[in-house]
Amino acid sequence: MTVTTPQGFRAHGVAAGLKSSGGKDVALVVNDGPTYDSATVFTANRCKANPVLWSQQVVADGTVRAVVLNSGGANCYTGPEGFQTTHAVAEQVAGHLGIGAIDVVVCSTGLIGLANDRQALLDGVDAAHVGLSADGGQQAAEAIMTTDSVPKQAVVEGSGWSIGAMAKGAGMLAPQLATMLVVITTDAVVSAADLDQALRAATRVSFDRLDSDGCMSTNDTVTVMASGASGITPSLPDFTDALTQLCTDLAMQLLRDAEGSDHDIAITTLNAASEEDAVEVGRSIARSNLFKAAVFGKDPNWGRVLASVGTTQAAFDPADLDVAMNGVWVCKGSTPHADPGEVDLSGREVTVTVDLKAGTERATVWTNDLTHAYVHENSAYSS
Amino acid sequence: MTVTTPQGFRAHGVAAGLKSSGGKDVALVVNDGPTYDSATVFTANRCKANPVLWSQQVVADGTVRAVVLNSGGANCYTGPEGFQTTHAVAEQVAGHLGIGAIDVVVCSTGLIGLANDRQALLDGVDAAHVGLSADGGQQAAEAIMTTDSVPKQAVVEGSGWSIGAMAKGAGMLAPQLATMLVVITTDAVVSAADLDQALRAATRVSFDRLDSDGCMSTNDTVTVMASGASGITPSLPDFTDALTQLCTDLAMQLLRDAEGSDHDIAITTLNAASEEDAVEVGRSIARSNLFKAAVFGKDPNWGRVLASVGTTQAAFDPADLDVAMNGVWVCKGSTPHADPGEVDLSGREVTVTVDLKAGTERATVWTNDLTHAYVHENSAYSS
Repeated sequence: MTVTTPQGFRAHGVAAGLKSSGGKDVALVVNDGPTYDSATVFTANRCKANPVLWSQQVVADGTVRAVVLNSGGANCYTGPEGFQTTHAVAEQVAGHLGIGAIDVVVCSTGLIGLANDRQALLDGVDAAHVGLSADGGQQAAEAIMTTDSVPKQAVVEGSGWSIGAMAKGAGMLAPQLATMLVVITTDAVVSAADLDQALRAATRVSFDRLDSDGCMSTNDTVTVMASGASGITPSLPDFTDALTQLCTDLAMQLLRDAEGSDHDIAITTLNAASEEDAVEVGRSIARSNLFKAAVFGKDPNWGRVLASVGTTQAAFDPADLDVAMNGVWVCKGSTPHADPGEVDLSGREVTVTVDLKAGTERATVWTNDLTHAYVHENSAYSS
Repeated sequence: MTVTTPQGFRAHGVAAGLKSSGGKDVALVVNDGPTYDSATVFTANRCKANPVLWSQQVVADGTVRAVVLNSGGANCYTGPEGFQTTHAVAEQVAGHLGIGAIDVVVCSTGLIGLANDRQALLDGVDAAHVGLSADGGQQAAEAIMTTDSVPKQAVVEGSGWSIGAMAKGAGMLAPQLATMLVVITTDAVVSAADLDQALRAATRVSFDRLDSDGCMSTNDTVTVMASGASGITPSLPDFTDALTQLCTDLAMQLLRDAEGSDHDIAITTLNAASEEDAVEVGRSIARSNLFKAAVFGKDPNWGRVLASVGTTQAAFDPADLDVAMNGVWVCKGSTPHADPGEVDLSGREVTVTVDLKAGTERATVWTNDLTHAYVHENSAYSS
């Protein structure tokens, strides 16, 4: 159930002293081939961390042979020194593997504006390389944890091939920017172009729709590497379906581990004029602190849902909106319908359904509630 | 220091039993002329409350002779019955004053989806009318309070004329949607067209730049009425300046009264290519839960500031941004500069300055911090 489940990969994770906790903080995942096709998506934030600036160059040619990751420092806004540290780490990995640094993706997570100890990182790379093994995925997954309460991994089996992955990120409710790092491995034979198409399709409906607090990381990186070691070439639809299933599994693991959250909220917008409208509406609700506070207070406050819908440019009639919470239609035709008292928000899972009655498209966006005292101010009033 | 400070206005506030607390909940402000020019701005939310739908028709001709307001229920998403309640209230006021209901603005605040007791409202209107007096501004101001800890009023004196105002709203951190209601009175002679121009200019740089949690109300209404009782016609620039001063004073009162807040944060963006860019950057930072959480934790986390700037479309070079907190330039050229330890966030007032180095425009956006446990998750990490 790790990045080393697919054939053709080795990994390891070690403690290099970057984390004050003394826990594992450097991970290395190596693709032993025979193919080295890859695809990567990065954060859309215009303020990007040094590892992202470096890795954007690495992935340009569709070839990635290794990914080295560290927790204990995001190496973001650390200036030229910071970029040189990222470069040095890639060179160190390349030297050990006898490859070019330009084929080594680097990922970092932790505080912004904090320079990593270059020598400690390089020593960590040495140790991680020595320990590389075909069953080292678990150690690697543990080494990229920051505020994560559990390592996050997933595997999807194809016919004769598989996809494995590890992820870090405690939802966007996590301290700092909840840098989300994901390394995906597969032993299927998939070209870089097909990997790119599949990865963008998969992330568009999974990670891209996880929006715990609207804050966008400077370090987010999702890299997939194909070793081709199974010798099997799945159809692109089959591979895309498997990859989407894997990314959704990981996204739900991130959602469930979101710090300080009491509820996981799935917001589904129905009958939208376009999928974009459905996502805009869902994201607007997901970013309403007042709505999220109400959920924490177990208050089925559909008024806050409609108020969020009203801030969007989506097509709908403000006088004819329906809203359900946990399946109870508390609002129909923009007027009170079922008794909100019928909505039980005591469980962790919450669903919100908005019917725009403007088309046939739909989309689901996931978020968490806002918990504790700030929320108290917003949740105590109407309860 | 009230809406009855300017000549030509009477007001009163009474308890009509709409508030469970038994406090005052119905307010009436009447313009006795000789002029009845007015201007109003409403919430931009597409999901508007019944009083807003009604009042949009009332203000269309630039004439308003009275404003009746109630707390204890927003009368939003209450269907045709709710609209009929708003209409009945306007008719009741009109009947007492011998005017047309179409000259009566109605404002409501409280829970969305909650129908107001029509008879209680009408009885409240009767009592408020009986008590109307030229020094009833204070009672009116108290009757529109919801979670406000203090009534909010302001007066600006011109030469021979004055502007008075009352406002309710406990910042957008308040329960529900912190409906912001403002009634402004002046005895200056100002045409409806000039009032509209002055009001839009004043609110654009005051209320419109107060963004405590990004949630937009369904009921926000700001109405200005000119009685012309002073017989003096100020220049439009003079009147606009005074009105802007008044609205900014009220906006700061709302900011300071924001529920659950420990800090008032003024975010100033310098050297932007356009004022719109400056506002977009300020608003993005103001809406970052992580940044606001850090301020609560007294953590001068400029990384979260840059991460928010990076999510905007404003013109800037991500590699050359400067950030100061409370006057300390903690980041220059997008790299660490002064020791963040020099930033003292123990006081309530916090300033954040971002230099985009892209032009000559500037703007300030005001917000509050995110407090307590949710924030704890975000503020404890780097401290």
